[in-house]
Amino acid sequence: MGLLDYFRSSQAKNSAGVAKERLQILVAHDRAVRGRPSYLPQLQQEILEVIRKYVDVDLDAVSVNYEQEDEREVLELNIVIPDAPHASHAP
Amino acid sequence: MGLLDYFRSSQAKNSAGVAKERLQILVAHDRAVRGRPSYLPQLQQEILEVIRKYVDVDLDAVSVNYEQEDEREVLELNIVIPDAPHASHAP
Repeated sequence: MGLLDYFRSSQAKNSAGVAKERLQILVAHDRAVRGRPSYLPQLQQEILEVIRKYVDVDLDAVSVNYEQEDEREVLELNIVIPDAPHASHAP
Repeated sequence: MGLLDYFRSSQAKNSAGVAKERLQILVAHDRAVRGRPSYLPQLQQEILEVIRKYVDVDLDAVSVNYEQEDEREVLELNIVIPDAPHASHAP
């Protein structure tokens, strides 16, 4: 599984220092037929809605990348999940 | 964007010969706190339901990979989308 390997290697980089709650979603669409309108932007909205059922996501905390090439479009969502309030707001 | 680069490089391999309609979804969850129950398996179901609004997906055509490590869990969905019927079923 090349993709999982990729994630594995990026894990080392990302969570070495700070432990941060983070959700990363990638959607890659390989199209057989070009020229059809893309549904990924809309799919993105719906996926975000689903995710917000599980975690409390501020839409400001979502960074979105969308790239389109000939036969492939890739949507990337990076979501930083706010910690449950257990520190960080001292009186 | 390392992730997009990765997708780019895997595109070369995958779509060199046959043009196949394909959707690949990755969800990586970096957890700050271990030991909480995972919501990814359930998220997976809901994401699939969303996707089925856009494309006609046979659940048999979905291959799922789930890996869990200490602070990261990764869910991978690979979906082959059946072509709109324009060939392949000759009388």
